[in-house]
Amino acid sequence: MNIAILGYGTVGSGVHDIITSQNTRYLDSLHVKHILIRKGKEKTSPLMCDDMEEILKDKDVDIVVEVLGGIEPAHSYIIAALQAGKHVVSANKAVIAKYMKEFQDCATAHGVKFLYEASCGGGIPWIHSLEKAKRIDRIDEIKGIFNGTTNYILDHMVKEDAQFDVILQKAQELGYAEKDPSADIDGFDIQNKLKISASIAFDCDIMQNFPTFGIRNIRKDDIDYFTTLGKTVKLMALAKRKEDRYCAVVEPILYGKGDVEASISENYNLASLHGETIGDLKYYGQGAGKLATANAIVQDLIDILDQVPLYDLHLDTTLRFDTSLVKGVYLLRTTLKDAEVKSILQEYYGKTDMYRDHSYSWTKEISFYQMHRMMQEIVKIDRDAFMARVNEVDV
Amino acid sequence: MNIAILGYGTVGSGVHDIITSQNTRYLDSLHVKHILIRKGKEKTSPLMCDDMEEILKDKDVDIVVEVLGGIEPAHSYIIAALQAGKHVVSANKAVIAKYMKEFQDCATAHGVKFLYEASCGGGIPWIHSLEKAKRIDRIDEIKGIFNGTTNYILDHMVKEDAQFDVILQKAQELGYAEKDPSADIDGFDIQNKLKISASIAFDCDIMQNFPTFGIRNIRKDDIDYFTTLGKTVKLMALAKRKEDRYCAVVEPILYGKGDVEASISENYNLASLHGETIGDLKYYGQGAGKLATANAIVQDLIDILDQVPLYDLHLDTTLRFDTSLVKGVYLLRTTLKDAEVKSILQEYYGKTDMYRDHSYSWTKEISFYQMHRMMQEIVKIDRDAFMARVNEVDV
Repeated sequence: MNIAILGYGTVGSGVHDIITSQNTRYLDSLHVKHILIRKGKEKTSPLMCDDMEEILKDKDVDIVVEVLGGIEPAHSYIIAALQAGKHVVSANKAVIAKYMKEFQDCATAHGVKFLYEASCGGGIPWIHSLEKAKRIDRIDEIKGIFNGTTNYILDHMVKEDAQFDVILQKAQELGYAEKDPSADIDGFDIQNKLKISASIAFDCDIMQNFPTFGIRNIRKDDIDYFTTLGKTVKLMALAKRKEDRYCAVVEPILYGKGDVEASISENYNLASLHGETIGDLKYYGQGAGKLATANAIVQDLIDILDQVPLYDLHLDTTLRFDTSLVKGVYLLRTTLKDAEVKSILQEYYGKTDMYRDHSYSWTKEISFYQMHRMMQEIVKIDRDAFMARVNEVDV
Repeated sequence: MNIAILGYGTVGSGVHDIITSQNTRYLDSLHVKHILIRKGKEKTSPLMCDDMEEILKDKDVDIVVEVLGGIEPAHSYIIAALQAGKHVVSANKAVIAKYMKEFQDCATAHGVKFLYEASCGGGIPWIHSLEKAKRIDRIDEIKGIFNGTTNYILDHMVKEDAQFDVILQKAQELGYAEKDPSADIDGFDIQNKLKISASIAFDCDIMQNFPTFGIRNIRKDDIDYFTTLGKTVKLMALAKRKEDRYCAVVEPILYGKGDVEASISENYNLASLHGETIGDLKYYGQGAGKLATANAIVQDLIDILDQVPLYDLHLDTTLRFDTSLVKGVYLLRTTLKDAEVKSILQEYYGKTDMYRDHSYSWTKEISFYQMHRMMQEIVKIDRDAFMARVNEVDV
């Protein structure tokens, strides 16, 4: 099969490297015919071109691999490729999270495939596993550590006994974190991945702007306090379904030392699902990186090559967002006085239950939604406030 | 598709339960037509029969599910079903470990499929993941916690601060362990699973009788000592490949608190692979149990129903067993005097390097093969001796 790669950064060149390694008979049957680079960029290979029309018009191109990143022109290129009858494989979580239903419907209408294993969990075969589990089970919960950068930061704040800024800078030097780290540390990268994962798990085009609170404000003092509690903090994605209701949230959660989540170190990811007959399944692997992400893309290419049948996915189930599906005890660090916190609690929670330990206010059991709304108010006054959920109470 | 289930114990009835739940369109297309029970057993359903010939002669039966356990008549029934042009799905690790090449060749010769996802790691999609990883990578290492019973025992010896016998009895009461626990605690169940997994990973019908040392002799004192070292002991399966050489071993290994392996509690399993481009992938889930194991069998049924293409598997690569591929530091508890241990070390290792800490002899770096041979000699004299590898040195 002939492939056009749109974008030739780390992942795009990784895809090319794996295909040309021709290690297996599957790889022997894949051929890179075009590489789209930006206008004005130097063409370092005869495969390179800067005109998308050339690729769209080439009848010999079977599959377009989109690794441009960003929303445009990725969105228009994907639609144009699908409309031209070409399969599309993408690793671009931002554009998929935003347009997955449109892409899915367009692919179906034109009798081609739209695959995106690499968009969530890097090299972990997570999307495939979700789809496979759904052949038998209704999935009622997915969760995970979906961002290697923030996991690296949290892990190394413990290991090096260091402040957030120091480790963030180190992550940037190692190439784990971007110059503008917001997408990672504020949780928006995870939000995209959870939007995609939960939409597949629940076969519902879920809303994008669910409550999301990152780790920008975490301090060494917080880590030290969690250690005295015997806990490890992880930035988690979580989505639940119960009957015709669902919820989704990104937030820091404290895990006990015996939990698998607590043992995930460095920039590794962990993706978990729960189904009625299969119980808990968890997948651990590299959530980013050149070859691991490229591996996931090439797996999609081989699925197309080998005509592996697609699982059912319509994204048309109607589910209602239920703010009461996840409740828990939160702890909150803020410079606000108890009376101020209690007044905000009263407004958003209707109660003032709370107790203090060191610099931390502990809530009683509260809905994640109420807590996130409250936190939005608190950070308007105390920009450095931090919160984490301690303990989950299933409903 | 019409299915005949051979054997109606926990797993066989679980398969029936999942299929008749008809939760998904895939399950709607599967129909149980026969259930083979032992001669003389009461027929509690009109689907039940006690004559395998009846099933073999029924042209409407597409797939035979073998969950009888044991070697015979499982082996002859599987061969007969494949020869009759029926696909076979089996969860029977003992018979598969022994005859996998014969089954594979027979299935190929008769144009049918032989699938066995449930044989290793219960509900974890492990076999599928190995085969999928091989589409791109050469797998150079697999390892894992492949036995829930022994993991439960080791975990609860720590949690309940109790002796081996007490927890073994509890595991038997819970139905986790058999009346005769040998297959679990002596490592033979894991040996079967590693034989199957490594044969797939390396596409080589590897030898069955590689070094295997279980946890029959472990004591609370050992657990306490490991705890003072900051270590958690796990009964591990490990196979490595390097060029045209491989090795395989089952033995207790000590992990540090930050290792994912150390965090696997209760009767859960963890299966790991390493490939050149994908790096480390680890899968966590229920390694046994009615519905999880039945889920894996039904996944195989759906793969046949949906005509999912099989991955290449010939089991015909020629690899040499290399006793030097895994080396490490072992610790050994024995009532033998230092001089006796040193004399055995000299005989099997050619050196007498060793030091003592409390009741434990620590070796210097030694090949797993030498250590296991030495241990065979030691347990002839000291039946209660125990050993564990502390640290792995890659070569």
